[in-house]
Amino acid sequence: MELALAAAHEAASRGEVPVGAVVLAPDGRVIARASNEVEARQDPSAHAEILAMRAATAALGTRSLAGCTLVVTLEPCPMCASAMVHFRLGRVIFGAYDPKGGGVDHGPRIFEQPACLHRPEVIGGVCEQENARILKDFFITLRETRDF
Amino acid sequence: MELALAAAHEAASRGEVPVGAVVLAPDGRVIARASNEVEARQDPSAHAEILAMRAATAALGTRSLAGCTLVVTLEPCPMCASAMVHFRLGRVIFGAYDPKGGGVDHGPRIFEQPACLHRPEVIGGVCEQENARILKDFFITLRETRDF
Repeated sequence: MELALAAAHEAASRGEVPVGAVVLAPDGRVIARASNEVEARQDPSAHAEILAMRAATAALGTRSLAGCTLVVTLEPCPMCASAMVHFRLGRVIFGAYDPKGGGVDHGPRIFEQPACLHRPEVIGGVCEQENARILKDFFITLRETRDF
Repeated sequence: MELALAAAHEAASRGEVPVGAVVLAPDGRVIARASNEVEARQDPSAHAEILAMRAATAALGTRSLAGCTLVVTLEPCPMCASAMVHFRLGRVIFGAYDPKGGGVDHGPRIFEQPACLHRPEVIGGVCEQENARILKDFFITLRETRDF
């Protein structure tokens, strides 16, 4: 989670919503690391989780992340949670809960849908306060800067 | 829908699950066209809709597809439907319904979620039989080839 949080801090320094993610191989090696690049790529699908999972499959030379763990600073949105189903991800560990935008423990609760074909193991709320703080700080600064 | 179906046929000829999509600008011009590339890219998130929306924002030089229409041969899955929310897509027109994998009229019904922040207009079941046929034919051939 420390690596994911460092990636989130890097995103914040680039003016991105600060979310960071890493993917670990079944043996615990870090095989991918990414942060939110929506602004840099002008691509609303360039969330940290999607970028990290793409990099992980490229690193493994496979289409499946079975047995792999994705660690991310924020509860994944419904798009990223659904992508985890397609990637056959083994486990997701996330930091802060996201009652407004989350899709795992909130909203459509993607993995609890009866038609969901693959359910990663889920561990949520890890280092919750620290992971929530970076987002709060980012949006406070944004409001001050943009005079909302 | 003819263009999207042609893209789906191209996907089938490459051994991909045959789904095709196009994006139209608010003035009706086709600004992006894509088909499923999961096998070619070894990327489970490379669905036709995501690729077409990425190409469309690149073509427009913007992050938003407000006022744009995406036409796709199959009901979008929850990942693609959720991506449409992030892309602020104006309208989605889809062909065949997908009771097992769909996320618009089936499963989590992404746009009907109370927390959904943007709801594209939806028109489903357009040229349904023709769009369903290409998928059925593909899976029949696959079963015969792989001796399932």
